[in-house]
Amino acid sequence: MPEKDWISSYFAPLARSSGAAGLMDDVAELSRAGSAPVVATVDAMVEGVHFRADDPLGSVARKLVRVNVSDIYSAGALPAEALLTLGWPQQRPESDLADFAKALGDELAVHSIQLLGGDTVRATAGLFLSLTLTGVCQGARPVRRMGARPGQDVWLTGQIGAACLGFDALQRGDTEDRWVTAYREPQLPIARIAGLVGQHASAAMDVSDGLLGDAAQMAKASGCGIEINLENISLAGNPRDLSEALRLMTWGDDYQVLFSAEKNKRDEILSLAADSVMDIEIIGEMTAAPGLRALWQGDRVNLPETLGFEHGW
Amino acid sequence: MPEKDWISSYFAPLARSSGAAGLMDDVAELSRAGSAPVVATVDAMVEGVHFRADDPLGSVARKLVRVNVSDIYSAGALPAEALLTLGWPQQRPESDLADFAKALGDELAVHSIQLLGGDTVRATAGLFLSLTLTGVCQGARPVRRMGARPGQDVWLTGQIGAACLGFDALQRGDTEDRWVTAYREPQLPIARIAGLVGQHASAAMDVSDGLLGDAAQMAKASGCGIEINLENISLAGNPRDLSEALRLMTWGDDYQVLFSAEKNKRDEILSLAADSVMDIEIIGEMTAAPGLRALWQGDRVNLPETLGFEHGW
Repeated sequence: MPEKDWISSYFAPLARSSGAAGLMDDVAELSRAGSAPVVATVDAMVEGVHFRADDPLGSVARKLVRVNVSDIYSAGALPAEALLTLGWPQQRPESDLADFAKALGDELAVHSIQLLGGDTVRATAGLFLSLTLTGVCQGARPVRRMGARPGQDVWLTGQIGAACLGFDALQRGDTEDRWVTAYREPQLPIARIAGLVGQHASAAMDVSDGLLGDAAQMAKASGCGIEINLENISLAGNPRDLSEALRLMTWGDDYQVLFSAEKNKRDEILSLAADSVMDIEIIGEMTAAPGLRALWQGDRVNLPETLGFEHGW
Repeated sequence: MPEKDWISSYFAPLARSSGAAGLMDDVAELSRAGSAPVVATVDAMVEGVHFRADDPLGSVARKLVRVNVSDIYSAGALPAEALLTLGWPQQRPESDLADFAKALGDELAVHSIQLLGGDTVRATAGLFLSLTLTGVCQGARPVRRMGARPGQDVWLTGQIGAACLGFDALQRGDTEDRWVTAYREPQLPIARIAGLVGQHASAAMDVSDGLLGDAAQMAKASGCGIEINLENISLAGNPRDLSEALRLMTWGDDYQVLFSAEKNKRDEILSLAADSVMDIEIIGEMTAAPGLRALWQGDRVNLPETLGFEHGW
């Protein structure tokens, strides 16, 4: 079909809210969230940088949505509305677009996100994508990286390292490995994490650039330090030694939620997590002394120089 | 300086609203617009597609902001908050980034837009950019392409064709031509157009893909037709004949506002325009019969098959 009909054929069916006006307009109307604060984030992905050229387009769509939902959850908010930028290379077949749009629609629906609008442009090299996502706060205000205080517990959802193992497998050419899906399609914590963070966390962020580096970031933003008991961290694939464990904890693409909370919130948090069958652990404590200290069976661990993937906002 | 410091050095100084949290977080908080509806748009630009590789980065920044502001104005809204996606090629020098950020900050300030957040990623080929921009409606609801009715006046701001002439000059290698700036940095109507459209227009859109094609789009979306008196259109560069005039009216990148309004609003619209020294003309009328009719000194004109650049949302 002609490219000018791609929007109406593939994307308009995904945009069912009245504010989207069937994607027939250049602007969309945001819905009103009542009195709750509304947050927004944008995350982009580039072929050959954030995903592999041979990754299925369905996986790319799911990853694009999830990396943004992960940011929204970590602010203590539930995702609401999205605008998509799609840079499409001419050599990609239309069937790739159909796969992408189908998976995007399904994934947005899973998270109750309304597609509001977007822009499609021609990419002169590989595919690139950018998604702007709004979210409605579940607490009185957005939870940020700053806000942790010495003496507070450090909590972590889920498991770390699965994406790293999946990427390793793909580098070996082993597309059937059990961890490949975790790299291509991050497994997020369940949506109830948004309410838990919004109601109880003093600071939070998603773990996308390597757990240890991210933990150091949260401490720095909060003007304090952080001590982590490495053996409390649930790691994928039973790493054979501390060195392998440290690699998983500094690789990234985990999209779990790291947050701090007052110690007197422990029972409530554990009870909320148990009610929702949510994997969650206390992995350490915020400290007055700045910096990151990592302990392994009580002993301080010498950390690698690079604690994660360092990049922008 | 190391790339990880680019955000804090170049972009954080542009993000002064509390919702942006100094760009130190993955999410931003949108401000509250009170009872007015809030709209959002996203427009992307790709090196070699929407701008030339040798265009100055300051021009690229201004164009990026303006093409989005143009959409917001056309909805009858004033721009408010922005999120930026920047795909940066490694071979571009840091001085390009400094130029881009400086011009971006200046241009956002001109339009009273707050930079809320964004994402910087590595581009594997040319530079690409995407800006999400919100706007606060100046009328009771967003003005859309649909909504025009037969018998209503068709209005157009400003001049058509300057970008086309500027592009021609650049293709000839004449970077000093007086129209080059109009191509690189579209000249928008003044901000008061937002209130005028929001209060008085029945339908509106920005002229970005060729005036005649855009006019046909507005008619089609509204379920009616449109008749345009070509001699009422203010054209750049005194075209020597109708054929050259038609080329200007189908080329695009004008970023003027096309809108329809009831005939009984004429005096009020003209008076508002005169108060603000705004260039604005009645160029035709919406019709019951579908399609686009163009008249030149009373005679119907045979139109070219392609009325503009056809693309997506």
